[in-house]
Amino acid sequence: MSNILTSTSPPDFLTKFYSALPPSDGGRPRVTLTFAQSLDSKIAGQGGQQLILSGKESMLMTHWMRTMHDAIMVGIGTALNDNPQLNRKSARHLPPREPDASNGHGNPYHLPRPIILDTNLRLKTDCKLVQNYKNGSGRRPWVICAAPSSRDDAVFAGTGRQIDIRAMLRMLSELGIRSLMVEGGASVIKSFFTGVSNTSGDFVDAVIVTVAPVFVGQQGVGYDLDLQNSSGVQHVHSEVLGKDAVLMLKSHPS
Amino acid sequence: MSNILTSTSPPDFLTKFYSALPPSDGGRPRVTLTFAQSLDSKIAGQGGQQLILSGKESMLMTHWMRTMHDAIMVGIGTALNDNPQLNRKSARHLPPREPDASNGHGNPYHLPRPIILDTNLRLKTDCKLVQNYKNGSGRRPWVICAAPSSRDDAVFAGTGRQIDIRAMLRMLSELGIRSLMVEGGASVIKSFFTGVSNTSGDFVDAVIVTVAPVFVGQQGVGYDLDLQNSSGVQHVHSEVLGKDAVLMLKSHPS
Repeated sequence: MSNILTSTSPPDFLTKFYSALPPSDGGRPRVTLTFAQSLDSKIAGQGGQQLILSGKESMLMTHWMRTMHDAIMVGIGTALNDNPQLNRKSARHLPPREPDASNGHGNPYHLPRPIILDTNLRLKTDCKLVQNYKNGSGRRPWVICAAPSSRDDAVFAGTGRQIDIRAMLRMLSELGIRSLMVEGGASVIKSFFTGVSNTSGDFVDAVIVTVAPVFVGQQGVGYDLDLQNSSGVQHVHSEVLGKDAVLMLKSHPS
Repeated sequence: MSNILTSTSPPDFLTKFYSALPPSDGGRPRVTLTFAQSLDSKIAGQGGQQLILSGKESMLMTHWMRTMHDAIMVGIGTALNDNPQLNRKSARHLPPREPDASNGHGNPYHLPRPIILDTNLRLKTDCKLVQNYKNGSGRRPWVICAAPSSRDDAVFAGTGRQIDIRAMLRMLSELGIRSLMVEGGASVIKSFFTGVSNTSGDFVDAVIVTVAPVFVGQQGVGYDLDLQNSSGVQHVHSEVLGKDAVLMLKSHPS
């Protein structure tokens, strides 16, 4: 069994998992929902505050996963609260390697495209994702917002507007995104989960959850799911990484 | 690595875990809180309905754990909803073995005492725990209720009555119980967790959680915790058993 902390390639269980997934049907990217949670299924602290739940081993798994995806998606809540770097961070934590001349950005690892789900365009231009792009160390982030409807006015701007996940995935596919890793936060996870529980809204292929051996308590942000049944996903693999447990599930073939 | 399904002795990680725990101080039993949950931290279905979350491997771990404890405690909700057997079940699932003449009940394995937390004495006399005792195949269950206060009357019987966990543990210790395994359900887990989060109420020594790779949804029964901080427990060991992940924590030394 190789040690993820010293390995120079992605862990076997991860490459195996993805090679066994059926290929995307072309109409949308292959979608992986992934997040770290406490035992009491909280993914953030009070008011959405960032919690460092994963240990370094499962964090490394996340970095490897990022190199295996065309794009990484987070919600605007996560973008504002955590001010993440997404791509650069991974390049910094993975083992040193020669730059890859073929990927066009001089980075040794594939840099996924950061995508922010930002219905009402609240992203700040001084966030790290934009700064990294400006100074040449990150890819240009894509921001997805909802067009104001004709009924919107100044008072109600933003209310009632929603991003249609299915249409968005179709659009991303047309833009060349074949694999998408959705990292959170809670409301994005909940939105995508409707694509797990409801076969008519089937747009999630894999769910990878890191469970950290801590309890956060009810002041934390959870992701209570509106599932009619839990038959939308089936277990593929479980792995202990450091203190954490990683549980990997895939969608039922529809 | 031995296979729990074929092993004739408790798994190593379990005996190691318990041999490393500090001995009970004598004033109360050593208390282990243990339960199986879904990824979204539900431990029962709608209305408290029993869910079979654990796979056979982690179920076997639970059976081994039962042989290592003087008593097993469940709440009245679990006793009424699941109608559990607790002790007999374990004897049936563990590997065949010669009866142990020293334990006084002719069973090959130690049979823990079933204890039901039943504030208002709702347990039915035709439940399996009582039946097993009557037909000689189980130990006599102990039922712990709260004495009605002098202010109770017919209308308000039961309201406001609570079992004082600390006093109860002291009493169990006086009755010879040195190790107690608390198996649920949600309200019992919540009550005992106040002894994890609050150092002044420290009466839990170990927490062993089995996480099954399923989502139950918000109609399930969870155990949202009123924790001020999560520093009350620390990680000891994580183990994959079949599809499930088992996370083992112990109380901080106070």
